[in-house]
Amino acid sequence: MKIWQKNIDVDSFVESFTVGNDRVMDLQLAAADVLGSLAHTRMLNSIDLMTDEDLALVQKELKNIYSEILAGDFRIEDSVEDVHSQVEMLLTQRIGEAGKKIHSGRSRNDQVLVDLKLYFRSEIQHIIHNTEAFFSELIKLSEQYKHVLIPGYTHLQIAMPSSFGLWFGAYAESLVDDLEMMRAAWKVCNKNPLGSAAGYGSSFPLNRSLTTQLLGFDDLNYNVVYAQMGRGKTERILAQGMSSIAATLAKFAMDVCLYINQNFGFISFPAHLTTGSSIMPHKKNPDVFELIRSRCNKIQALPNEIALMTTNLPSGYHRDLQLLKENLFPAFKSLNECLEIATFMLENISVKENILDDPKYDYLFSVEVVNNEVLKGVPFREAYRTIGIDIDEGRFKPSKEVNHTHEGSIGNLCNDQIQRMFAEVKATFGFEKVESALDDLLK
Amino acid sequence: MKIWQKNIDVDSFVESFTVGNDRVMDLQLAAADVLGSLAHTRMLNSIDLMTDEDLALVQKELKNIYSEILAGDFRIEDSVEDVHSQVEMLLTQRIGEAGKKIHSGRSRNDQVLVDLKLYFRSEIQHIIHNTEAFFSELIKLSEQYKHVLIPGYTHLQIAMPSSFGLWFGAYAESLVDDLEMMRAAWKVCNKNPLGSAAGYGSSFPLNRSLTTQLLGFDDLNYNVVYAQMGRGKTERILAQGMSSIAATLAKFAMDVCLYINQNFGFISFPAHLTTGSSIMPHKKNPDVFELIRSRCNKIQALPNEIALMTTNLPSGYHRDLQLLKENLFPAFKSLNECLEIATFMLENISVKENILDDPKYDYLFSVEVVNNEVLKGVPFREAYRTIGIDIDEGRFKPSKEVNHTHEGSIGNLCNDQIQRMFAEVKATFGFEKVESALDDLLK
Amino acid sequence: MKIWQKNIDVDSFVESFTVGNDRVMDLQLAAADVLGSLAHTRMLNSIDLMTDEDLALVQKELKNIYSEILAGDFRIEDSVEDVHSQVEMLLTQRIGEAGKKIHSGRSRNDQVLVDLKLYFRSEIQHIIHNTEAFFSELIKLSEQYKHVLIPGYTHLQIAMPSSFGLWFGAYAESLVDDLEMMRAAWKVCNKNPLGSAAGYGSSFPLNRSLTTQLLGFDDLNYNVVYAQMGRGKTERILAQGMSSIAATLAKFAMDVCLYINQNFGFISFPAHLTTGSSIMPHKKNPDVFELIRSRCNKIQALPNEIALMTTNLPSGYHRDLQLLKENLFPAFKSLNECLEIATFMLENISVKENILDDPKYDYLFSVEVVNNEVLKGVPFREAYRTIGIDIDEGRFKPSKEVNHTHEGSIGNLCNDQIQRMFAEVKATFGFEKVESALDDLLK
Amino acid sequence: MKIWQKNIDVDSFVESFTVGNDRVMDLQLAAADVLGSLAHTRMLNSIDLMTDEDLALVQKELKNIYSEILAGDFRIEDSVEDVHSQVEMLLTQRIGEAGKKIHSGRSRNDQVLVDLKLYFRSEIQHIIHNTEAFFSELIKLSEQYKHVLIPGYTHLQIAMPSSFGLWFGAYAESLVDDLEMMRAAWKVCNKNPLGSAAGYGSSFPLNRSLTTQLLGFDDLNYNVVYAQMGRGKTERILAQGMSSIAATLAKFAMDVCLYINQNFGFISFPAHLTTGSSIMPHKKNPDVFELIRSRCNKIQALPNEIALMTTNLPSGYHRDLQLLKENLFPAFKSLNECLEIATFMLENISVKENILDDPKYDYLFSVEVVNNEVLKGVPFREAYRTIGIDIDEGRFKPSKEVNHTHEGSIGNLCNDQIQRMFAEVKATFGFEKVESALDDLLK
Repeated sequence: MKIWQKNIDVDSFVESFTVGNDRVMDLQLAAADVLGSLAHTRMLNSIDLMTDEDLALVQKELKNIYSEILAGDFRIEDSVEDVHSQVEMLLTQRIGEAGKKIHSGRSRNDQVLVDLKLYFRSEIQHIIHNTEAFFSELIKLSEQYKHVLIPGYTHLQIAMPSSFGLWFGAYAESLVDDLEMMRAAWKVCNKNPLGSAAGYGSSFPLNRSLTTQLLGFDDLNYNVVYAQMGRGKTERILAQGMSSIAATLAKFAMDVCLYINQNFGFISFPAHLTTGSSIMPHKKNPDVFELIRSRCNKIQALPNEIALMTTNLPSGYHRDLQLLKENLFPAFKSLNECLEIATFMLENISVKENILDDPKYDYLFSVEVVNNEVLKGVPFREAYRTIGIDIDEGRFKPSKEVNHTHEGSIGNLCNDQIQRMFAEVKATFGFEKVESALDDLLK
Repeated sequence: MKIWQKNIDVDSFVESFTVGNDRVMDLQLAAADVLGSLAHTRMLNSIDLMTDEDLALVQKELKNIYSEILAGDFRIEDSVEDVHSQVEMLLTQRIGEAGKKIHSGRSRNDQVLVDLKLYFRSEIQHIIHNTEAFFSELIKLSEQYKHVLIPGYTHLQIAMPSSFGLWFGAYAESLVDDLEMMRAAWKVCNKNPLGSAAGYGSSFPLNRSLTTQLLGFDDLNYNVVYAQMGRGKTERILAQGMSSIAATLAKFAMDVCLYINQNFGFISFPAHLTTGSSIMPHKKNPDVFELIRSRCNKIQALPNEIALMTTNLPSGYHRDLQLLKENLFPAFKSLNECLEIATFMLENISVKENILDDPKYDYLFSVEVVNNEVLKGVPFREAYRTIGIDIDEGRFKPSKEVNHTHEGSIGNLCNDQIQRMFAEVKATFGFEKVESALDDLLK
Repeated sequence: MKIWQKNIDVDSFVESFTVGNDRVMDLQLAAADVLGSLAHTRMLNSIDLMTDEDLALVQKELKNIYSEILAGDFRIEDSVEDVHSQVEMLLTQRIGEAGKKIHSGRSRNDQVLVDLKLYFRSEIQHIIHNTEAFFSELIKLSEQYKHVLIPGYTHLQIAMPSSFGLWFGAYAESLVDDLEMMRAAWKVCNKNPLGSAAGYGSSFPLNRSLTTQLLGFDDLNYNVVYAQMGRGKTERILAQGMSSIAATLAKFAMDVCLYINQNFGFISFPAHLTTGSSIMPHKKNPDVFELIRSRCNKIQALPNEIALMTTNLPSGYHRDLQLLKENLFPAFKSLNECLEIATFMLENISVKENILDDPKYDYLFSVEVVNNEVLKGVPFREAYRTIGIDIDEGRFKPSKEVNHTHEGSIGNLCNDQIQRMFAEVKATFGFEKVESALDDLLK
Repeated sequence: MKIWQKNIDVDSFVESFTVGNDRVMDLQLAAADVLGSLAHTRMLNSIDLMTDEDLALVQKELKNIYSEILAGDFRIEDSVEDVHSQVEMLLTQRIGEAGKKIHSGRSRNDQVLVDLKLYFRSEIQHIIHNTEAFFSELIKLSEQYKHVLIPGYTHLQIAMPSSFGLWFGAYAESLVDDLEMMRAAWKVCNKNPLGSAAGYGSSFPLNRSLTTQLLGFDDLNYNVVYAQMGRGKTERILAQGMSSIAATLAKFAMDVCLYINQNFGFISFPAHLTTGSSIMPHKKNPDVFELIRSRCNKIQALPNEIALMTTNLPSGYHRDLQLLKENLFPAFKSLNECLEIATFMLENISVKENILDDPKYDYLFSVEVVNNEVLKGVPFREAYRTIGIDIDEGRFKPSKEVNHTHEGSIGNLCNDQIQRMFAEVKATFGFEKVESALDDLLK
């Protein structure tokens, strides 16, 4: 039976329409829901709204349920509306009346708000972990192949010498900026909405600072109207953070699909990681990267979807917000899988050596030659004109030496600086503080 | 004559199509372009690619041009392709050959990259300034009207007592989270791409750390391929940051349009700030807030537009990126105007007192009464049932006292904490360091 | 075993990433896949690529499988990659070698293309059916309540008299325009891509006109490269058509949520179709309409998602396209459910009579009074000024008569014309021709 | 002085914020505004709300103003709010009191609605005209180069033989489907909203069927609430139609940028239509196509922008709608320019012959060889295995003959059918009826 249900039976048609996929989605919130209740009940006890005996019973059983969730033994029954009701029901079945008291001083509104923030925190941490693994692989490849040159394109036209060192390293550095966006999302998620009740606060003398500390939040969502208003907004910001990583991955996948094409032919993967055909033996379809690109472009569409679903809603809770789970929750899994499989594929990449021996790339070096003349003292316009004439008259002979030394160039990739920047942004998240608070809560 | 133009005259049809609105857009980059050249030429001198004499001439004249830009006396001539060419041409007209040397060791690609980052930094600072003024006005009104109650809605149904203190304060706190997004945008913008040349570096022994320091950047975009790849990405991240503030403003505008509607009637503005009709004297059309809402929803669409224009482009420069200016640059002005006029309107807002005297709001207080019974020791389910019966049988008499004390509730708004959070995020931008570097550069 | 799989075993990690949700999605294509094979094999027979005996066997068994699909007895086994392989495997198990021949002269590319078009046709027909039911209910209510006045708002300010007749009828007419968009989608879907093979045609002497006729298509996608290029584009256009209906529904839901709010109080629904609370007896949360709004706004985001996933892909098949199923297929079900439940809710709506008796609506009639004076010969500006003074001095007494007679006004709704327009657009789809072709094919 | 302005002076800050760019945008509506007034005043005369004398004066002077608009001699003065006021003011200056009467029985709301629909109709016609020119050029090139083979790609991997005939023809056929979307937009635009007043009708005995006929509309927007509700919706549908053409153009531009790249090298343009460099003589930057791609992707973002600006607005006019002009109006010009310049560029394209002589394309023909064996009676699986072994063992020798004969294949492009389809859709617009009505109106 649903919590709001009193005497009137809601038509089953309406029921199934309104519940939708919530039971499936809510499963992912189960661990967070128990954490929230562990903190909330300790706070209730501190303000004398729960006895020590009830608290002991409740804490012990919530921890049992938490273990069951981690073990995959938790489910939401068909007769139960959502994860909050399922946890409360289990508790009451097992410890009796004390179980019902965990809802005091809370509404489902702030309960789901805190569940979402706890869940989002853990998903962000998971994404950052996978991003770091991908980042490290890119840096490794950048170092490994720093001497292997490739053509650099502008307007998709052959332009200047580049290198695999630059190419892999560029995507690594892109992730550093993406991390700034994820950090903003983390900061927004890492504030405590618990205690805002239905978005207008409570007449109970709640101690919201206590639950903030117990759950390892950085700070509170103070204003209770704002705590509620954060729903939808938090999701949009998180989706924007994810879209940033997704955009980097999708662009990388586009490059891979181009470079594995036979007209480019810069890279390859083992046959078992591509799909082919025995009568077209040259064909190595990069399905994995096409799907990374497609999944990531889908994630790029997510912030806009959330915006369309929340724009122009006046303040206060609306049931519309329930549906935000349906594309956001699967996006966590999807982005993590993309990061994992991209890392795995990179562990198996082969790069072609001596690409620039092909004479179609000779003119790549013309700018180098001009610059070398300038460094010898020839005025730029003159050097430029002379080389132009050499080329015109077929005298141009590139020396395929690249001697770039400045920061971030082929000869001086500064991957250590890029690693430093990654580490610096990551350190500002403060994952340890959160982990240690949750460890204490579950002790 | 355009820089890349040699012997072949480009068809004028093609010319006007490709130049597009660039001259208009580029005007906004003029100050940034001069700053970039001031730093670049000092660096060229430091690596012996510009003599002390030339440097002195160039620096003096660039500062003159900078003053002309600030004074509004700078324009891009029709025969000149872009802002970079215009500055170089002016310089060469005034100081001769030395003027041509400012382009050494640079391509237009990294020149526009650094111009954009400098320009974006200054626009972010401008937006933060206006956001702070709006924030302060909201906090002021929240404190001023903290005792004036209004109904709180869930599902747009009358639900619980709220207050103007909560309402204004909620939007102030929303801006704190928006600031985290703007901070991410700032961090991404505050790295130096200068020295990446056409996206593949240079054989000149550039000192990119020096220009980084001279221009007050936090760090470098090290990898030169990434420096180029940041174009489009930087714009998207900045638009996402702006969309966050815009979403807060648009939602506030929606509330205002609802609350000024006669069926609600919670707030009003002086007649000269609304539009009306002498035969419908009740009519106070909130045009300003409708336009704030509309402009801000347009800004919310910007990140997606940028994503659509940049998705699936392989790495390396593409001319596509030129068009990103056309909706982004006007959005700075639009968002700033929205923030300014919203602040101005709030300085003139009137709120209605005693709204909750209307008996249609009586049931707002039923949850309060239940909670009060619980605090006296009555079990929740019993208190709830009793009040339900009282209401059913017409015995319910609300005491319209609201006694909420916890953090962020009607009686304890914690506006000081919200102000602390705002100040803390703002402090992490480091505007002073940037200002001081630019002051030194222009000295 | 997958069709392209020869000697190399694809890593299972890669396998599960690439197959994704395809087995689930493809179930919805099963009926279409069989229809396509029924037509394709008849065509193969006509060009002597399938014997009469084989054709007879294949046709009989395909019809059996079709019945199993309709009966819900068809599934895609875990070891089978997609719906095409499952059908082919079943067939071969049951009728031996002849089953393998259905793939001749086809690639999976054009097979999935024709499956999608057949499936989309049937979904469009389903949506139009539900749209028509919703349309009829709106027209019915418009007629039923044509005499019940409500305030009309501009700028969300009380402006002019309106009526339930106008309000319901407006949404009915909105669906007529939506139908034009669905018709465009239908036209794009109703062309035959079968025979385009992998997007570059076939050396077999296929008779594509024959399959076109057998499957009831209006025309061919002639150019085989375009037939392939239509993938992604067809989906986007269909999503745009659906977004049009969704936008109408979402706007209607917004109005409902506003009108059921107690400050408006224009409409209500029976208690069992809203959710409430026994201590807030006034509370009738319109969850159903909030979820209609939210689902429909999500559908509005779909065309953009598809655009982001397909933009800037060069011509030719890319695996990216596989993922378009994942949000589009569920959107059919979601939109149909929204249309059905909206119709159901409307069958249960109550409207409030005498709303305009409330004096706050008196000024609604001031424009009427001015116009009446004008019709009596008083110049507009003079009439306007006189009424303005009357209002100012408290003398204004509205006569709450509304006497609008022109086409589409309160007194002359023209619902019959709106019904005519709906019927006219619907007639241009030509559903009967399609149904009759499919009946023949299955005979 | 603005029409609604009575005694109160609106703060100039607010004034400039609310007027925004409207004067610039409204210029484009001027011709439509005069057409609307020509029809409206003839209708007023028919219901005795305008005398024959006044009508004669008004018609004559409106036609003069119309000529001035066409001649480029019309402007909106800074002191005048919008195009409607400017026309009314001019008229009154020139013919006195009669000029003021054109506003009777109209509000600015339905006046702008009809202006927009008339303007959109003319812009659609313009776009269709340019689309047809582009279509014809594609068909011409398809025929011209039907014997020139190119590789066809799937997964961007070399897959099967294709041809320039197929490539150009595919984009031509794509435009046929785009036309269906434009037709839907045209149908939605080609209904008359005039007479809906402020969205709630009028007590005047307007004859809306008469203005419908005079303005050449197909039908009425009957329901006056819907006539108003069509604002925003009409724009979104029109933008969706344009996005369809834009998507075709953008994809074509992506192909061009790829095919002009030196690794592909399939096509080229004369030097004066690309941008290059004398020291990189191979470099032919396809700026025009990059900008077509970028502009068209921007247009693809437009429907979503409009959705974000209009979603969740309750029914009735909101000032938000004014801003829809700002991105939509320039998009007409932008799309037309893209179509024109794409046509111009195609007139100058060169295609490379003998591309497939390069041995890297040999395996393209393996499927052909298998199919030929099958046609000779060898079972498919056997033929496939044999060729696979031949390839493995280096025995494979492609015969580079392509003998495709079915509808839409290399050897049978069916361009005449594609032209027929284009003509059929175009014929359903009914441009002639509109042109003839407007000619009569202006006579």
